[in-house]
Amino acid sequence: MNFETLRWNEGRLELLDQRLLPQRIAHLSLKSAKEVARAIREMAVRGAPAIGCAAAFGIALEAFRLKHLDKESFLPALDEAFSILSESRPTAVNLFWALDRMKAVFDPGNDPETSAIMLEKEAKSIFERDVEDNLEMGRNGSKLLPEKCNVLTYCNAGALATAGHGTALGVIRTAFSQGKAVSVFACETRPLLQGARLTAWELAMEKIPTTLICDNMAGFFMKKGEIDLVIVGADRVAANGDVANKIGTYTVAVLAKRHGIPFYVACPASTMDMKASSGDEIPIEERNDAEVKGYRGIEWAARDVSVRNPAFDVTPHDLVTALITEKGVIMSPDAEKLSALFSS
Amino acid sequence: MNFETLRWNEGRLELLDQRLLPQRIAHLSLKSAKEVARAIREMAVRGAPAIGCAAAFGIALEAFRLKHLDKESFLPALDEAFSILSESRPTAVNLFWALDRMKAVFDPGNDPETSAIMLEKEAKSIFERDVEDNLEMGRNGSKLLPEKCNVLTYCNAGALATAGHGTALGVIRTAFSQGKAVSVFACETRPLLQGARLTAWELAMEKIPTTLICDNMAGFFMKKGEIDLVIVGADRVAANGDVANKIGTYTVAVLAKRHGIPFYVACPASTMDMKASSGDEIPIEERNDAEVKGYRGIEWAARDVSVRNPAFDVTPHDLVTALITEKGVIMSPDAEKLSALFSS
Repeated sequence: MNFETLRWNEGRLELLDQRLLPQRIAHLSLKSAKEVARAIREMAVRGAPAIGCAAAFGIALEAFRLKHLDKESFLPALDEAFSILSESRPTAVNLFWALDRMKAVFDPGNDPETSAIMLEKEAKSIFERDVEDNLEMGRNGSKLLPEKCNVLTYCNAGALATAGHGTALGVIRTAFSQGKAVSVFACETRPLLQGARLTAWELAMEKIPTTLICDNMAGFFMKKGEIDLVIVGADRVAANGDVANKIGTYTVAVLAKRHGIPFYVACPASTMDMKASSGDEIPIEERNDAEVKGYRGIEWAARDVSVRNPAFDVTPHDLVTALITEKGVIMSPDAEKLSALFSS
Repeated sequence: MNFETLRWNEGRLELLDQRLLPQRIAHLSLKSAKEVARAIREMAVRGAPAIGCAAAFGIALEAFRLKHLDKESFLPALDEAFSILSESRPTAVNLFWALDRMKAVFDPGNDPETSAIMLEKEAKSIFERDVEDNLEMGRNGSKLLPEKCNVLTYCNAGALATAGHGTALGVIRTAFSQGKAVSVFACETRPLLQGARLTAWELAMEKIPTTLICDNMAGFFMKKGEIDLVIVGADRVAANGDVANKIGTYTVAVLAKRHGIPFYVACPASTMDMKASSGDEIPIEERNDAEVKGYRGIEWAARDVSVRNPAFDVTPHDLVTALITEKGVIMSPDAEKLSALFSS
């Protein structure tokens, strides 16, 4: 990889600022949980696994920043950090999963210095484990890809959305590195254009052949027989296999079904929320009007028009051919199969 | 209407420059067929019926410009104008239909002055008839709309796409003016954003409640039950009822089918191409990469990524609930019903 999405650097969290890519490569250097929460909210860092890692480091940062306090002041201050981070974005469950892991290693009986060391260790472990999981997902998923295929992907579920390698793009990367002739159709992904800006940039760097299309063109190319399969990532998978992912994913799944094209979702177990019995229980973030009325300060829409801007949608599990996880591939996912995955 | 899409002004064709809307209201004043062809190609004027009107006026302009020539020079020069205009854009059939009508009234035996007068008269008649047809379509289509409904539309099939009133938006306008509580979801329509710029602008002017969404959000709102029906326009309808329209229309039709939502296409008979037996025979224009890589000079995509940019797609007739025409509503259109329409 020629870039690092997140880097832990001696008590600083350095983030590649994804709002500026690919025109500018710039890093944020963050020193507090509040700064991390803001970077998540404003999408300097995005992608469910990357958000989880960032939140974990956010807690570690805060513990380092506050370790000089006495225990009585340290505890509520750290609590506050947990709560600020948990409110940064609502849909990607990895955020809450990572914060829960951080909470689980935190022993209020320890002195702040010890706590900081333990929290840093856990954040690093979440980060490192995410890379390993993605590599494993890549190996598991690659087996589903023919020797030669055109893959449609949506948004960015790449190294930029994770600690490294990527989920959906991780599968594509692994297949490509194994010598498979993989070509990618990348949907641009309005309103924030993660496909045009991030996926196209990541794949170009590794010379994986990529064609950029507008989101409304996926049906055209499926109908023409130019797309063999779809792989996307996920922000949260419910216990029955329903998948919340970037807005527009549901439409791609409906189109894939109509054309008999496999629709795969690559995601680590940390993206699965066994407390949500179906997609109906997954909260969907709605973001601001400006994102839809233009892009980055340029407004092209009619001035006074109303806007709706849901950032995610839910694809029901019957449209999902398989979930690709680090624990294996789950064909036709449902509540029983997901439950088995977690009890094994 | 507070604006005129096209205006014939004493040997000049004045066009509202739709590339600049809604930020700037500016008109082009065109003096030759070549200038009109360029305005069509560069989409200063767009929308199948409006393109047909513009092309007809383009021939009239040229006849006026050349009427001082002797007959021997006039004929090939006018031929050249027909050929330049017919090459401006390939998909919307109204262009060819209008040029055929102009050819039909042109008698090479007449002197140029007489020809110019007759061609001007025919162009004006095409223009005036388009407005009448749209009003009739509006009355026919409005009967399909419940007293209170949320209508999703795509691209711009409004007054801006026609000589006035509009096809899809014409139906909405008529229903609204009859007192029906119509709300509109307008898809932004990448890459050229006719929904965000033109439809939202047109509807706001008449205070028809409108919500702008990205193209990839239509499925989300259908799944939530917030959309009662879809109405779009068409660029060409084949003899079997297959509909070529702005890229992304097919996806909306597939989604409507999945959700049991009526999918209506409003178009005049001049948009029907009885020579194309199915949508497979309709040529689909592919436009330049820059449109997909950004918008109006701003490039946001990764620099070297390949692009595909089909401007239209074909919706098979089995996804079309009805065609709304000036001659009546054709439910579940097919070859037999369309053929009957033209023989009646």
